[in-house]
Amino acid sequence: MAKFEAVVVGGGPGGYECAIRLAQYGIKTALIEENKDEGLGGTCLNRGCIPAKTLLMSSDLYKEMKESATFGVSCDNIAYDYKAVKERKCNVSKTLRNGIAGLCKSHGVEVIYARAVLTDAHTLSLSNGETVEADKIVLATGSQPARIPIPGIDLPGVVDSTGLLDLEECPKKVVIVGGGVIGIEFATHFTNLGVEVTILEMLDTILAPLDADISSAMAAKLEKNGAVIKTGVRVTGIAEGLKVTYAAKDGSESTVDADVVLMAGGRRPNSRDIGLEKVGVATTRRGHVETDGLCRTNVPGIYAIGDLNGKMELAHAASAQGLQVAAHIAGKPCKAVDLNKIPSCVYTSPEAAMVGMTEKKAAESGRDYEVSIFGMSGNGKAMVMGQNEGMVKLITDKATGEILGAHLLAPRATDMISEFVTLMAAEGTVDELAAAVHPHPTVSEALMEAAHVVHGNCVHAPKPRKKK
Amino acid sequence: MAKFEAVVVGGGPGGYECAIRLAQYGIKTALIEENKDEGLGGTCLNRGCIPAKTLLMSSDLYKEMKESATFGVSCDNIAYDYKAVKERKCNVSKTLRNGIAGLCKSHGVEVIYARAVLTDAHTLSLSNGETVEADKIVLATGSQPARIPIPGIDLPGVVDSTGLLDLEECPKKVVIVGGGVIGIEFATHFTNLGVEVTILEMLDTILAPLDADISSAMAAKLEKNGAVIKTGVRVTGIAEGLKVTYAAKDGSESTVDADVVLMAGGRRPNSRDIGLEKVGVATTRRGHVETDGLCRTNVPGIYAIGDLNGKMELAHAASAQGLQVAAHIAGKPCKAVDLNKIPSCVYTSPEAAMVGMTEKKAAESGRDYEVSIFGMSGNGKAMVMGQNEGMVKLITDKATGEILGAHLLAPRATDMISEFVTLMAAEGTVDELAAAVHPHPTVSEALMEAAHVVHGNCVHAPKPRKKK
Repeated sequence: MAKFEAVVVGGGPGGYECAIRLAQYGIKTALIEENKDEGLGGTCLNRGCIPAKTLLMSSDLYKEMKESATFGVSCDNIAYDYKAVKERKCNVSKTLRNGIAGLCKSHGVEVIYARAVLTDAHTLSLSNGETVEADKIVLATGSQPARIPIPGIDLPGVVDSTGLLDLEECPKKVVIVGGGVIGIEFATHFTNLGVEVTILEMLDTILAPLDADISSAMAAKLEKNGAVIKTGVRVTGIAEGLKVTYAAKDGSESTVDADVVLMAGGRRPNSRDIGLEKVGVATTRRGHVETDGLCRTNVPGIYAIGDLNGKMELAHAASAQGLQVAAHIAGKPCKAVDLNKIPSCVYTSPEAAMVGMTEKKAAESGRDYEVSIFGMSGNGKAMVMGQNEGMVKLITDKATGEILGAHLLAPRATDMISEFVTLMAAEGTVDELAAAVHPHPTVSEALMEAAHVVHGNCVHAPKPRKKK
Repeated sequence: MAKFEAVVVGGGPGGYECAIRLAQYGIKTALIEENKDEGLGGTCLNRGCIPAKTLLMSSDLYKEMKESATFGVSCDNIAYDYKAVKERKCNVSKTLRNGIAGLCKSHGVEVIYARAVLTDAHTLSLSNGETVEADKIVLATGSQPARIPIPGIDLPGVVDSTGLLDLEECPKKVVIVGGGVIGIEFATHFTNLGVEVTILEMLDTILAPLDADISSAMAAKLEKNGAVIKTGVRVTGIAEGLKVTYAAKDGSESTVDADVVLMAGGRRPNSRDIGLEKVGVATTRRGHVETDGLCRTNVPGIYAIGDLNGKMELAHAASAQGLQVAAHIAGKPCKAVDLNKIPSCVYTSPEAAMVGMTEKKAAESGRDYEVSIFGMSGNGKAMVMGQNEGMVKLITDKATGEILGAHLLAPRATDMISEFVTLMAAEGTVDELAAAVHPHPTVSEALMEAAHVVHGNCVHAPKPRKKK
């Protein structure tokens, strides 16, 4: 029987980062991953963010090329080779996966490819017949696309995000059930390629967790690019020939045709058949493992991180939890990951990103806050790029200048949001943001301008009207 | 005679921002700009950063299209229409210029198109015959390309950056005299287009003010893209047919042919014939107006900002000085612009950006510092983008974790540098940067990773060797 000080179950971004950091702390660590071929890096790297961004990279380029005459560059016969893109996607994932294997080796993490099931609080039984013992066990088994039980869900052409990434050719008509981040990113991908896209969303808005100003601007942009968006509708069934029927709130039904139907209606945790019941690890009604602020389960010595605990289904949230748990196990100072300071990104055109409170949340919080918006039409670099749509929206505390929320819809937004994340980590204020001399000409100037708007002295915005 | 509380002379990024901010403070302000057609926005907007970036936007796209097969997208007959690009360039500048005129109007700045000459410390004589009086005068007359007195400098085809922006067709062979930011950006532009480029630089390295690791990586990249770089050479003359002769340090001479020779050897301040001598405003030997930390000249009531005072020839440095002077005139709290916290950008592929000390400066400073590097090959998003060359290099104070310098060579570097600028403004530390959860997958994660390198626990870098 192999013995370790710590064993991490699941090689996704939560698990492998936890395992490597544990090893860096000098703790004898094993990382157990079920899927030998496409497991390290988890959903994110193999069936999620990375492959999706690789597809988007190519379809964004295709769209830019279609519109290149605007920039004085022309060409003929633009073609998108779906198979070549898929091959590149697989290569990018493979390279990154090999990189993780190399990092594990370099730092001395023992990687074991097997399925692991808890048999007691310190023992795991592996599918290869071995048994592994550990002082501490970190569960990081992730999640998978949820299956919505509607008629026709098993028809060929009805796929989840994993299936969509494996398409060999470009569909002509796509229906996307679910207007969350996954649905909207694929909608962007397909509208880039000129595919007919219909988005069916149950809520009254797409991208509901984003600030309403951002999600409505995003919806308008998608519609401008040809997508049809139906909100407040419920899919009732899918018939042969992929006819998707959906009902409005008043009960009236409509049907839309598709070659491919993407079910993008959320994910469920991989908490079944891993022995949770046997050792008494508590789970929620939705199947997530219950954890405290430090990701400890109710069973001493067992932790759960990432999608499995359901706190925030984002790769970087899982990684942050993994590093926190590693520190906790090593007896290093650590504190709970502050979920209010975890950013979210949507890889659309322009990109969207946010951190902290939306305006709605700020209103509900009862704090005395201020809302300030700087439109990207006032940013020179965005105009140079031909992408001067969007905005920077700040929610700040009136008394202290603390940044409560930042919302970007702008080129490069997914990278620029980190400026706010870091400023918030440093407990900086909007005054400090305003005083920081941002380089010209950059899109990032818009962040500083939004801070000037807070002070009512933005040079690059018209004179504000008297406040009520 | 028109009377104002403040008059700003020169409508560039220093001048117009100063004027608008003064008006926002309730001060009756005029902005005097000599060039009615292409004056507002100054060199930056009309003959500098903005037009150069517009050309680069198009040639970057051209190069991407040439290489699009890597991303599974193909096309035929890619053509770059130099005239169309020039037209777009002019339109972008015009739109932004009109924007500034609109902002001046909105905020109540009176814009006067005339050349202004000081007649006493509070009076300006204008070329339209008028006289203007003001309590405070802010000089922001900028700079122009310096002329190097070498034989052949007046031959057709020998141009400065202004002339280069006006080319109607693409040259086949370009010789660039001067490997500073302007020279290197145009070198990038022309190598994008497959033009033969030779860079002649007097110093031992191109981009000498950058950190040596960044400038040497940049030189290698330019050479990989086909540019020829000769450092440590002095141009001795240009002969008919544009044969450029240059001498190495040992005196040996060589010659290179060109269709176009770009003289990119620095700029000189516009301090002549504006009445400085008449009112006794002191200037340096190189012609810059002498100012103190608050941009005050030796004559009470007269300020000089931007390129004219020679402190830092960057648009955003001029703007920052303009806002500082406006605050000073309005009696608001203000402090000297900290030039150590002003970022610099180079719009190459990948982009380069820096703020604070280079490693060389840190060594000279005698501080106890640490150097940490994270290579972009470890960044997933950069790999998705096919641009995983470059690095993030941090210089940090060993005792306090203060960030002394940050150096980026990475996609989107010019926007990401602002994260460091803001962190430095908030007096944050590298620990706070490391603790800030950066979103995945983004290029900005590399900034956080570099902070982890400082702590010796970067998950995405191999185990470091024992330090000496």
